[in-house]
Amino acid sequence: MKFCSNCGAHVQLRVPDGDHLPRYVCEACGTIHYQNPRLVVGCVPEHEGSILLCRRAIEPRRGFWTVPAGFMENRETLQEAAARESHEEALADVVIGSLLSVVHVLHAEQVHVFFRAALPVARFAPGPESLEVALVTPEDIPWADLAFRSTEFSLRRYLEDKAAGRENHYFTTLDRHAGVAPRD
Amino acid sequence: MKFCSNCGAHVQLRVPDGDHLPRYVCEACGTIHYQNPRLVVGCVPEHEGSILLCRRAIEPRRGFWTVPAGFMENRETLQEAAARESHEEALADVVIGSLLSVVHVLHAEQVHVFFRAALPVARFAPGPESLEVALVTPEDIPWADLAFRSTEFSLRRYLEDKAAGRENHYFTTLDRHAGVAPRD
Repeated sequence: MKFCSNCGAHVQLRVPDGDHLPRYVCEACGTIHYQNPRLVVGCVPEHEGSILLCRRAIEPRRGFWTVPAGFMENRETLQEAAARESHEEALADVVIGSLLSVVHVLHAEQVHVFFRAALPVARFAPGPESLEVALVTPEDIPWADLAFRSTEFSLRRYLEDKAAGRENHYFTTLDRHAGVAPRD
Repeated sequence: MKFCSNCGAHVQLRVPDGDHLPRYVCEACGTIHYQNPRLVVGCVPEHEGSILLCRRAIEPRRGFWTVPAGFMENRETLQEAAARESHEEALADVVIGSLLSVVHVLHAEQVHVFFRAALPVARFAPGPESLEVALVTPEDIPWADLAFRSTEFSLRRYLEDKAAGRENHYFTTLDRHAGVAPRD
């Protein structure tokens, strides 16, 4: 951030009075521009034991596989965001279920949230952000070709819980800067 | 948003190519400025059956009661954010527990997330954003003087679950524009 989105003047990075973190501050109009983590929301859609995966047509990680997910928009719920992304990326109508995972992706300044989901009818096709979409059995999940570590974490917890007959939710934290997450 | 934070030119509100929602777009440098919901994170700290509440020293809802909560910062986890807010607003060292509630506050373009928490030692005092801080028994919670409906929702679910001996998590949606939430 270089300019104030309110008045167009140059901004400075400094700790405002009474604050404890540096912020982009406009000395001309007084606006403090806070920057906060963005929510990325997705789901693991299942149809008769198989999982709906999308191969990405866009960067980052073009050509790699993931579950439907994307940035949450204003004025929608987490569940609505997960269903919308399934529709946009896989032209799939899913029914969102229970909370599956929350992944703090520190280096990306994002929080990823995944839900379980049902795909009642096996109807799907690639949306503009997908190269292909497929229903894959758990044995055929392309673990080495998944796009993101948050996808892998969520799929593994999903399958473990399914095998154990439970629906828990799981938190984890990824931080590439700390050398923890080489691919996200 | 009136000016591009990248180059300082005027921005326009329009639907970018391949998108479906209006965004602030800079025609000078090509930057698209996405706006997404912000995360507000808090907790319900308990000490020997009483709940730690803060009376707000700042707007909105100055003078009303809430649990420690505030905007999540970059490069922290949800749990770290909840603990930090407890320290800042109530000078309290809490131990964050299980997920309690997720509240979509549509009109504010926020997602509020609350955790259960333990306050092992009854040591607390008002931080700069609080007029007073108090441990209150469930019977003494000032329901009519709570600052936010997301606080009320979370406290009610907390007490119900405690009485029932369980720790579930709960989703809800508030939308003042739709006439649902008069106070948030």
